[in-house]
Amino acid sequence: MPGTVPQEPWPTDVGIIAVEVYFPSQYVDQAELEVFDNVSTGKYTIGLGQSKMGFCSDREDINSLCLTVVQKLVEKNQLSYNDIGRLEVGTETIIDKSKSTKTVLMQLFESSGNHSVEGLDTTNACFGGTSALFNAINWIESSSWDGRYAMVVAGDIAVYATGNARCTGGAGAVAMLIGKDAPLVFDRGVRSIYMQHAYDFYKPNMDSEYPLVDGKLSVKCYLHALDKCYEAYTQRATQTGIIGENASLIDSADAFVFHSPYCKLVQKSFARVFLNDFLKEPSPDFSGRYAGLESFRNLKLENSYFDRDAEKALMTASNSLFTTKTKPSLLLANQVGNMYTPSLYGGLVSYLLSVSPADLIGHRVVLFSYGSGLASAMFSLRITKDLGPKFHKLLENLSNVKKDLHDRVKVAPEEFDKTMKLREETHNKAPYAPVGSTKELFPGTWYLTEVDSMYRRMYDRVPLVQIPNGNVKN
Amino acid sequence: MPGTVPQEPWPTDVGIIAVEVYFPSQYVDQAELEVFDNVSTGKYTIGLGQSKMGFCSDREDINSLCLTVVQKLVEKNQLSYNDIGRLEVGTETIIDKSKSTKTVLMQLFESSGNHSVEGLDTTNACFGGTSALFNAINWIESSSWDGRYAMVVAGDIAVYATGNARCTGGAGAVAMLIGKDAPLVFDRGVRSIYMQHAYDFYKPNMDSEYPLVDGKLSVKCYLHALDKCYEAYTQRATQTGIIGENASLIDSADAFVFHSPYCKLVQKSFARVFLNDFLKEPSPDFSGRYAGLESFRNLKLENSYFDRDAEKALMTASNSLFTTKTKPSLLLANQVGNMYTPSLYGGLVSYLLSVSPADLIGHRVVLFSYGSGLASAMFSLRITKDLGPKFHKLLENLSNVKKDLHDRVKVAPEEFDKTMKLREETHNKAPYAPVGSTKELFPGTWYLTEVDSMYRRMYDRVPLVQIPNGNVKN
Repeated sequence: MPGTVPQEPWPTDVGIIAVEVYFPSQYVDQAELEVFDNVSTGKYTIGLGQSKMGFCSDREDINSLCLTVVQKLVEKNQLSYNDIGRLEVGTETIIDKSKSTKTVLMQLFESSGNHSVEGLDTTNACFGGTSALFNAINWIESSSWDGRYAMVVAGDIAVYATGNARCTGGAGAVAMLIGKDAPLVFDRGVRSIYMQHAYDFYKPNMDSEYPLVDGKLSVKCYLHALDKCYEAYTQRATQTGIIGENASLIDSADAFVFHSPYCKLVQKSFARVFLNDFLKEPSPDFSGRYAGLESFRNLKLENSYFDRDAEKALMTASNSLFTTKTKPSLLLANQVGNMYTPSLYGGLVSYLLSVSPADLIGHRVVLFSYGSGLASAMFSLRITKDLGPKFHKLLENLSNVKKDLHDRVKVAPEEFDKTMKLREETHNKAPYAPVGSTKELFPGTWYLTEVDSMYRRMYDRVPLVQIPNGNVKN
Repeated sequence: MPGTVPQEPWPTDVGIIAVEVYFPSQYVDQAELEVFDNVSTGKYTIGLGQSKMGFCSDREDINSLCLTVVQKLVEKNQLSYNDIGRLEVGTETIIDKSKSTKTVLMQLFESSGNHSVEGLDTTNACFGGTSALFNAINWIESSSWDGRYAMVVAGDIAVYATGNARCTGGAGAVAMLIGKDAPLVFDRGVRSIYMQHAYDFYKPNMDSEYPLVDGKLSVKCYLHALDKCYEAYTQRATQTGIIGENASLIDSADAFVFHSPYCKLVQKSFARVFLNDFLKEPSPDFSGRYAGLESFRNLKLENSYFDRDAEKALMTASNSLFTTKTKPSLLLANQVGNMYTPSLYGGLVSYLLSVSPADLIGHRVVLFSYGSGLASAMFSLRITKDLGPKFHKLLENLSNVKKDLHDRVKVAPEEFDKTMKLREETHNKAPYAPVGSTKELFPGTWYLTEVDSMYRRMYDRVPLVQIPNGNVKN
């Protein structure tokens, strides 16, 4: 029954064993984009909270992004492809209506002889990665689990037509290795789901990479889903003893990571959680945490999505908690942009990289996943208390992230714009020979070499190691 | 570990509680299509084993098919939408790259207030329904299960460009209610998966409903996957005691149901299983079951996909077993055509309807699911021994199938061809007002009423009950 604490015999401590994140090696600067787009200074950088936006040339597609991140995860963790019994891809970057990216990834498994890998591709906007994650956890707890790892892959190329929304793009992929006795353990019995029919953001134009967006509706849907997930999660977390009766959700966890379409929405979302805590609190401390919120005591959630006064007061009151508990998770969102399905997990990675490992001992992280259309969930994980070798290995394997972010190539908005036009004209073309340079790609990046007249896609990989004498080792 | 018999505490007898199948109310006759297509008599009817092909006008799309089958399942079983905790859609009929059909189905849940329904859409050719089924079973066995039913929906509209393959189309949807203490119980510890990268059938032209097909490669991939699944399933089924050491797989089960692109391939597939049994058998009885196969004793599986002599000899030798164990499952495949993801489950329904309930007691059914690209699995279920009220209810709810098949409207090939042209020109158009007649649709069928300028799709439903005085009751 919902909310009861599940007991054994499910495997112990099912969670994330390892994680790998990939983002493009080139970016456009959001301040420069403001000038290029002829919008007011600060519109993207302050208004949306975005600094840089990663993007792909015609050399990368959803298959190549996933090939890259999966192979890197396997290599860094010295895994055999035989160790993986399930692999599911969450994406909304659809380049084939029938053939899944999962089957393209099976090329990496070919030489191992392992073809017994459950899972396909799963889609609903930015929620696909989370659904794949839930399916992976369920598999490990089921009678069909055979002791091997599950791999969850989330990848997307987020691009928008010229106009207001283009600056909210991004691209990237995350791969997670899921298993038992993990350093990041998912809480059982608290997973909360909210799904509803909505046309807030969708991609019905099959010939285009761009979505249709009802921006205002999308913000409303996001915040409404957050309210509903808050309600169900806190109820379950109370029943399972994670949080006390009527206690603050914010106090129950050390970090809150949100799906991030843009960073400012995440700050508003944290303020929304704060509002829910405030409305639930029987006797709010107006001289302390809830100072300045007296006049919002009777606010109705369903009437306040666009209440600017309330939003401002809540963001002010929750600012220091936001700075501690959520802002650290925004590094990749701020530096790469919206990666869609990987966004939430990029947030988790950013959080793990934000403090020294010792400061993460036993931390609980609450995650909110949202995909337009709509599908959403709130769930949580806790970081192992002993910080053993698995945890250190997980962190060590992420040590490239900040350096790679720094090492990217900045591209002028004019060039970025040309690349977008090129993608528009060619992303679905066959036969096609990609023209983008492969020089700037990170070592180990898979890239498209050819689409033949039968639309079959061929890929190659940038050598992983560049040896000083100029030779390369693959 | 693979192959060990899983023990409790997973819920008992997880399986299919109820099933609903939907197919279009109009069809084209394959013999008439042979004349229209100017091909040799019998090419489709004898060569492929197809009698009729169901098809949809511009009034139906993947959303409407799934709305129809889900609501019918709920109504027939007097369920509340609150009883359902998970719903996943398997399909390769993609009309939006981001918004899932699952979220469209949430409209049916709206008035119940139940928004806590895990699962999205999942895709890889005809395998999506099976993947959704496995995910449903895993969920019920996981710590996240809350006691409610899972619903698995498989739906597709299978259409081909004019030419050789057009006659292998079809359309339909199946919804299955999955839970514990089911009348059709999945065997644990035997599920066998085979996945590989292949371009045998795929849909890279995003603007078209039609696939690209490498027909010969697809047959080879299907048979190769079947061999591999046979190998893994028999190994696991031996370990779990379902079949004896070196025993024939065919003898271990009462029925074998296959994904059916066309019926003749299924007969070849049964012969392929027979071949695998034959090659595994230490001392084949050449005067009995394996008469006439002496010269094929050293046949290599990987060299025999297109060995016509072997195929003919094997089909002859296995014909009586095929007639008993597989042919009964081909009713819907023969009468409707390839429904893609629902095909396998239409086969299961056909089998259940083929004999009297008493003749199904304790029967074991082996299922082979295949989706190009490729993903495949072999698994099995057994029919309850006590044939209790749940089993009778399941069968009773399928009692409309044969009558509905018979009550369909036959459409001339010329009209069918016009409808295909109409779909070609309009399936992805916005705004669009569908022109197809709704008169012939079965009671309770959802249909498209409008696509607005923002590509938002609106639906209505044919009243479920026609009252004799001419009034209708919805």
